[in-house]
Amino acid sequence: MVSSQASRFRMTRGRERWRTLSLLVARLRELLLVTAPASSWRELLGSDLPIIQAPMAGVQDHVLAVAVCEAGALGSLPAALMSPVVLEGALRKLSAGTSRPYNVNFFCHVPPRPDAERERNWRRLLLPYYKELGVDPEAASSGPARTPFSEEIADIVEPFRPRVVSFHFGLPSSELLGRVRKWGSMIISSATTVDEALWLEAHGVHAVIAQGFEAGGHRGMFLTNDVATQVGTFALLRQIVRAVECPVIATGGIADAEGVRAAMALGATAAQVGTAYLLCPESTTSTVHRAALSSEVARTTAITNVFSGRPARGIVNRLMRELGYLTDSAPSFPLAASALSPLRVAAEKAGSGDFSPMWCGQNATGCRELPAAVITRELAAGL
Amino acid sequence: MVSSQASRFRMTRGRERWRTLSLLVARLRELLLVTAPASSWRELLGSDLPIIQAPMAGVQDHVLAVAVCEAGALGSLPAALMSPVVLEGALRKLSAGTSRPYNVNFFCHVPPRPDAERERNWRRLLLPYYKELGVDPEAASSGPARTPFSEEIADIVEPFRPRVVSFHFGLPSSELLGRVRKWGSMIISSATTVDEALWLEAHGVHAVIAQGFEAGGHRGMFLTNDVATQVGTFALLRQIVRAVECPVIATGGIADAEGVRAAMALGATAAQVGTAYLLCPESTTSTVHRAALSSEVARTTAITNVFSGRPARGIVNRLMRELGYLTDSAPSFPLAASALSPLRVAAEKAGSGDFSPMWCGQNATGCRELPAAVITRELAAGL
Repeated sequence: MVSSQASRFRMTRGRERWRTLSLLVARLRELLLVTAPASSWRELLGSDLPIIQAPMAGVQDHVLAVAVCEAGALGSLPAALMSPVVLEGALRKLSAGTSRPYNVNFFCHVPPRPDAERERNWRRLLLPYYKELGVDPEAASSGPARTPFSEEIADIVEPFRPRVVSFHFGLPSSELLGRVRKWGSMIISSATTVDEALWLEAHGVHAVIAQGFEAGGHRGMFLTNDVATQVGTFALLRQIVRAVECPVIATGGIADAEGVRAAMALGATAAQVGTAYLLCPESTTSTVHRAALSSEVARTTAITNVFSGRPARGIVNRLMRELGYLTDSAPSFPLAASALSPLRVAAEKAGSGDFSPMWCGQNATGCRELPAAVITRELAAGL
Repeated sequence: MVSSQASRFRMTRGRERWRTLSLLVARLRELLLVTAPASSWRELLGSDLPIIQAPMAGVQDHVLAVAVCEAGALGSLPAALMSPVVLEGALRKLSAGTSRPYNVNFFCHVPPRPDAERERNWRRLLLPYYKELGVDPEAASSGPARTPFSEEIADIVEPFRPRVVSFHFGLPSSELLGRVRKWGSMIISSATTVDEALWLEAHGVHAVIAQGFEAGGHRGMFLTNDVATQVGTFALLRQIVRAVECPVIATGGIADAEGVRAAMALGATAAQVGTAYLLCPESTTSTVHRAALSSEVARTTAITNVFSGRPARGIVNRLMRELGYLTDSAPSFPLAASALSPLRVAAEKAGSGDFSPMWCGQNATGCRELPAAVITRELAAGL
């Protein structure tokens, strides 16, 4: 009895010591993290400036990436909508256009099984719009496919050995990720919650992108699908910086030099900026999208799944309003896009963005019709 | 014909000149705003530090406000849940407790007309919970009433002449606002969109609080009720600073010195911090609320209307999950609260926060069981 009590006492004391030590280590780490300068973006990105031009599938190609790289920031090539052949061509042009480091971005979603009934319901829901625009419902093309990162794509990318490879919607399989690591690219991916950041770090990324609620385009969310609990940049960045040991890149709502500096004051190693580049002559942003970005309607954006099946932030337009920003009717990502494609084409021909995804973050004040080099230099002012 | 053409030409030229002039003025103003230092918080708030302790009805009284004022920041007394008698007592204790400036906060909603059918439906929806907790549905008290700012309340406040009077949900009538202005208080109010900020400025506030999506408690929204288009602090602050001429106070997701500094780098004159004070011994935060704030569940918050009828951010709990964060079933603000009150009391007695509004911003990392003076000094570190 006595000996059992003594041993329990020893165990308790041991546990207490362990707990005290753990708390001490945690506190020390916190102090170090809060006071130590963020590890240099140069080691991570290889660029002169701590700025990444956000990869924006559908509104840019290698031209914007080259211009940003040449201005000293990290330009990005969005590969999500590119076929292997197109991707190879774009990589050739990108690497011919600049000798500076660049980023290539891939989606890594699990392709959904097509669901004939859901697709039928979706097309039925859109039928009144087809009638209104005089579009043949049978003409619904399959549109550009969004394919996830794969061995085939890795084969194309490997010879180019991009300085940075970024992923959206988590990470590819550990085998595929191993290939990218082996050929020497820095691997980064988006987290929209602290849990996602911890998961990415545990799976070996070199840096985490803290994608705040403000960010335009697709949410990188992959461990949750609850849009209502997504976190604003200010709160998310700070918590991820405290939670992980790897560098953290801030994105969402950053549109000027003050924003970049504030992100770095909050512990970011670099800032990723997308929306501010949308009006650049080097972007391929459509006319209706440009018009919306240049007007006050750009102040009102919402996260919607109507355009692709996955939550993404865009300027509120007619389709979003009429179907509801988030609807259970939309087929799984990326299947929702196909049926919309002919509506979008017809409406845009008539000068209307009613059926177009006009991706945009919550701060479009940085959008100006200026060369990407000027935008980049302005973002870096005072660093 | 010629003369008509000439006159049209003159008009066009006049309009063009006007447009060029407007653009020039806008550009100049932008340059000045971006480069000029924010006007001093001392003139506005009268406090040593550019920090406002956010008024938090239900979790604090004058004790927290006194402690914060004495530490050099602006303490706030939330009056929304106080009867006139209680408010008078609290103001006496607050002004006796500190000779420094303080803020008194009022709601200024339009009280709803009670809707018997909606109330019946709401109670029917909650009936299974009454049964589960063994609470008599007839016992549903009316709970503490949230009354808007009024002549009667103004009579009580006037003799105290608080340095700052802050409003939530817009502003009171121009007559009432005129009284407050006349007795010399600085008037501030929350904006959740650029439009709301412009409206507040046009109605004569001395400063606008940019309340980002991250902020805990009730959203100040009053020109929109679309929660999905609410804007993160990073994006909102920057846009409001560019849109208005008066000082802007940042709130939402700010929980440490880095956050305060980042907000000021984005152009804020001061930062308003609430959540970080919730575990202070001077707060009256409930036991279940404190437990949630101290655990990882505090990472998951959402904007919900189930507790009061108006959107407010709190830690996700059972009631929010089961009814949906935002439901059309909840009676209008503040009527939804009454039927919930007995459930909350019974559950809290059993140690559960399942039916309690546990208001919390998206960044609870600043919450520690430390005196409010310590929290305040830490927030101001390095300023």
